[in-house]
Amino acid sequence: MGEFELIQRYFTRPTPHAVLGVGDDCALLQMAPGMQLAVSSDMLVEGRHFFADTDPRRLGHKALAVNLSDLAASGARPLAFTLALALPTADPAWLEPFSQGLLALADAHDCELIGGDTTQGPLNICITVFGEVPAGSARRPGQPATQALLRSGAQPGDDVYVSGMLGDARLALEALQGHIQLPDAVLHTARQRLEQPTPRVALGLALRGVASAAADISDGLHGDLGHILQRSQVGATLDIAIAIDLIAAKDHFTRARGQFDHMLSPQTALQCVLAGGDDYELVFTAPPAQRAAVQAASLASDTPVTRIGQIDAAPGLRLVDGHGAPVANNFTSFDHFRS
Amino acid sequence: MGEFELIQRYFTRPTPHAVLGVGDDCALLQMAPGMQLAVSSDMLVEGRHFFADTDPRRLGHKALAVNLSDLAASGARPLAFTLALALPTADPAWLEPFSQGLLALADAHDCELIGGDTTQGPLNICITVFGEVPAGSARRPGQPATQALLRSGAQPGDDVYVSGMLGDARLALEALQGHIQLPDAVLHTARQRLEQPTPRVALGLALRGVASAAADISDGLHGDLGHILQRSQVGATLDIAIAIDLIAAKDHFTRARGQFDHMLSPQTALQCVLAGGDDYELVFTAPPAQRAAVQAASLASDTPVTRIGQIDAAPGLRLVDGHGAPVANNFTSFDHFRS
Repeated sequence: MGEFELIQRYFTRPTPHAVLGVGDDCALLQMAPGMQLAVSSDMLVEGRHFFADTDPRRLGHKALAVNLSDLAASGARPLAFTLALALPTADPAWLEPFSQGLLALADAHDCELIGGDTTQGPLNICITVFGEVPAGSARRPGQPATQALLRSGAQPGDDVYVSGMLGDARLALEALQGHIQLPDAVLHTARQRLEQPTPRVALGLALRGVASAAADISDGLHGDLGHILQRSQVGATLDIAIAIDLIAAKDHFTRARGQFDHMLSPQTALQCVLAGGDDYELVFTAPPAQRAAVQAASLASDTPVTRIGQIDAAPGLRLVDGHGAPVANNFTSFDHFRS
Repeated sequence: MGEFELIQRYFTRPTPHAVLGVGDDCALLQMAPGMQLAVSSDMLVEGRHFFADTDPRRLGHKALAVNLSDLAASGARPLAFTLALALPTADPAWLEPFSQGLLALADAHDCELIGGDTTQGPLNICITVFGEVPAGSARRPGQPATQALLRSGAQPGDDVYVSGMLGDARLALEALQGHIQLPDAVLHTARQRLEQPTPRVALGLALRGVASAAADISDGLHGDLGHILQRSQVGATLDIAIAIDLIAAKDHFTRARGQFDHMLSPQTALQCVLAGGDDYELVFTAPPAQRAAVQAASLASDTPVTRIGQIDAAPGLRLVDGHGAPVANNFTSFDHFRS
């Protein structure tokens, strides 16, 4: 199978929204009047972001999901994406399920594959995704004129929220690497979170005009909330008693709490929740006056959200226990060139 | 050096045109009214698209140049790009010149780096580039409503042109791989063509409304003209006596023509010109009534163009010698999964 047959067979599809899709030197998109283009690019490398034996269907899903998650964090509606793919060989047994997983998620979000590149090389998947957000007026001097959710809008006194559950992806990774042992049912659920994350697109859209800042959690809550704090020049305090309950796997152990503490210590669970990465949930902030609106956004998007802390004027990320007492913070987020 | 310091130090720059640049979940672009977004994505893999010892400054240039070349082929004006980069290590001795070569070419085209991704992995450079072209009316039924140059617009009777010189990049590759020997001066010039191609952006812009179809020559004239023929459902006849003169290296041998024939047979030269790849020139078509306009576009963009054949109604690509006699055509273009 040659390069052009490969593109034709697996990656060429109707693009009713695009002016021009796969097959020319460039694809062409026409933005609706008053809309801005939101762009994000993510590269997934075998052995770094996924195991060599990952189910290609799940991998196709995940490769697009991590990009859609960036659109979600910006409150952007998905429009289209490009796929650049380096493959060791053109293997139909891999390409078929990979493209199915990829395009099923694309269809679910009405996000068209409009172009890209294929080449021979160590497996590498690079997707660039395009979305639209309405233009707007700057919320503060120096801020961009957009209705997009930004990392830079958090204000002291704002609440801090996360969507969904956190930490299970990291828990699966630890188990798959043999560092911890998990019951089959727990591993199954956790592995699904690692390999088939759900981009929170609907929540991101619902939070436009409600959230003051947002980011997606790809490198861990600690690090990604850290980006919000840095860009907003604020600090935050998080309640770890709430945070630790965000790990879904915990529920599997409730009938045998002793088993939980044995197999998954609170310290490990908290490490997974705060510094796990690969969750692809949203962390966002909103003024207390918006609590009802946040609740409405959660319901409208069918996405659970949990309030886990608040924004402070003092820089830094502080952790407190359920009684408000300080807890040492020695968590760090994932860094591709440090770990 | 961590991931975020790396991005901050080498790849974070002012983005006066973008609504929002590097540092948030998405970058934001505002298209001018009446403009369409042109998008292209190219992935460069070490050992496949460049040698491991390639000068990183030239590699930075080339990585963006091959993408700008796609905008050129569409007649699009460059706006911005994203860079996704997998690196074995975060080595300042490589990153510094790579980013300099990349950003110097970006500056020359007023093309802003607005986002991307960095990760650890086998060296892989994936750039997605954004340009603008005016919307327009479809030139024929079923064609997209755009003023962009397309592959699909060639008509029987049109002239076929190429920009600049062809074949030298492949000649350099053959020499660097030890398949042929070249005098130093020839290798020096040819190698520059291989490692620092010139994207024909100004010519592409000047050809809007003049050319009937265009493509950039990345896989070889034979293959890339073939894309125009396929998408336009036409054929073409090329004059190989003109084509062979497109290899710049030939000029270096004129004082010793015997040396040329010895070191670079006409067959090798023609192979380089027709099937060489990595030229990043434009191949385009235009009605004979546009010859003066093509000449004007060439002058306005300071880019030489050569008329090398014409479009036929009969499918297929035919070669003729200087007297119009048929020449066997057994050239094929580069295919990443066949060679």
